[in-house]
Amino acid sequence: MSLLEKIHACNHWDPADYVPFVVAGERLGLTRRGFAEALAAEDRDFRLDRDGLVWWSAPTEFDARSAQFAAILARLVDAGLIGPLHREPYPVTAGGRGQARFLIDRAAAPCFGVRAFGQHLNGYVRTAAGLELWVARRAWDRRHYPGHLDHLVAGGLPWGVSLSENLRKECHEEAGLDPEQADRARPVGAVTYCRASTSGLKPDVIYCYDLELPADFVPHCTDGEVAAFYRWPVDEVLAIVRDSDDFKLNCNLVIIDFLIRHGLIGPEEPDYLALVQGLRAPLP
Amino acid sequence: MSLLEKIHACNHWDPADYVPFVVAGERLGLTRRGFAEALAAEDRDFRLDRDGLVWWSAPTEFDARSAQFAAILARLVDAGLIGPLHREPYPVTAGGRGQARFLIDRAAAPCFGVRAFGQHLNGYVRTAAGLELWVARRAWDRRHYPGHLDHLVAGGLPWGVSLSENLRKECHEEAGLDPEQADRARPVGAVTYCRASTSGLKPDVIYCYDLELPADFVPHCTDGEVAAFYRWPVDEVLAIVRDSDDFKLNCNLVIIDFLIRHGLIGPEEPDYLALVQGLRAPLP
Repeated sequence: MSLLEKIHACNHWDPADYVPFVVAGERLGLTRRGFAEALAAEDRDFRLDRDGLVWWSAPTEFDARSAQFAAILARLVDAGLIGPLHREPYPVTAGGRGQARFLIDRAAAPCFGVRAFGQHLNGYVRTAAGLELWVARRAWDRRHYPGHLDHLVAGGLPWGVSLSENLRKECHEEAGLDPEQADRARPVGAVTYCRASTSGLKPDVIYCYDLELPADFVPHCTDGEVAAFYRWPVDEVLAIVRDSDDFKLNCNLVIIDFLIRHGLIGPEEPDYLALVQGLRAPLP
Repeated sequence: MSLLEKIHACNHWDPADYVPFVVAGERLGLTRRGFAEALAAEDRDFRLDRDGLVWWSAPTEFDARSAQFAAILARLVDAGLIGPLHREPYPVTAGGRGQARFLIDRAAAPCFGVRAFGQHLNGYVRTAAGLELWVARRAWDRRHYPGHLDHLVAGGLPWGVSLSENLRKECHEEAGLDPEQADRARPVGAVTYCRASTSGLKPDVIYCYDLELPADFVPHCTDGEVAAFYRWPVDEVLAIVRDSDDFKLNCNLVIIDFLIRHGLIGPEEPDYLALVQGLRAPLP
């Protein structure tokens, strides 16, 4: 296997399978064709025309629009058109988090191919022999990727929480880091990718952070989501990313970005340019 | 002015103005339509068809192909169709430097819209007050961007020289750094952009490096290309990039990348996502 394949695995989707999700003339996502047809047939608030799946009855104002969309989602759950909700509001935006047009339940975001935002933190230690990365193994009872390797800290970004607040919360829950330690994390960029999933399309933006940790730091998880922690030399982490499917899919990208920024994957690597560009795939 | 405008300034071109430059069925560049028409009319080695500007008589073998293209370029200079040559061979590739199909004189690369590769080095000092970046002012007699601000070390990547050899050479010529210091430079990624120029199209790949320098380091230029050196706090450099046109155009991108990787431009910045993606524009 190659590093590039790990990037391709996160960018696997066929544009022909989707139609735009349009609200007030603005394209805010991509809906799987079959789902769009079902929605237009079953629900009077949507129509399918040459623009795509149009929510024609959307109120203009943010709160009213969000409330009405929540009511629509509740109906769609009842009708069995979408699965159970998470009760976590995510912004609907064609740009950054700051350009939200209304809110959508996290679970429904892929059904409408809406961008989701998250944060991943590379917790590393500088040793005489080189960098070592803290890695978590996800608990075996987790719904997604049970038992897979994961970042020390990683999580989705719900609406209404600042980046630093959310990072503090995730740092505490997932690794037992206090707010002062969390605030020392350095934002270092973002990776973007888009992938077809069972529920629809996932165009994701992950804000990446580096946090250098002292040699005597030992993480502990406070929310039961982690089965174990490991501290491995970056060469070993690179080999795991390249040669196995042990890591949760999107962690591979954030780790490749880390290895490139720290000079551990260099421009002599034949795929270097494809890797560098592949980590920031244009989102649909 | 905004940081994003600096990225847009390096990505200014209209695809409608160009036709593919095709050799042995492979698209290797983009040629301005008028130049392609002139070439097809004047030179029997080229034809313009629905694939684009086709060099139909190209030999199969690398060296023979390069030699014949050099002879063609010499004729085109004589005919006044292209300007004087640099006598510096660049690879012609639709991918990375390692996938070269033949060689082209550096001066003619934009005429055929061929990718060019370069290296830029961020030389910085860690102080109690934060990072400071070494900046060079280009000599006033330079052909391109006289008197503009530039990186401590920056240069193009000719064919047949390894990345580390070329960096050593540029480090010595432009800043008086010895090979041991040059080898400590850390590769940290690449920026890509594509821009129309007077001579054609410039799809560029710049490999970026960070080099932390001691507080007492003082650069000196050995090839007369630098008028002065300055060491400025990164906040000031950020303001110059954002609010002026003082830097050579592509330096702005490498500095924005530096500021993002070091957490000095963070994800709270409204344009963050556009900046992060804009630094790695897909090349045509």
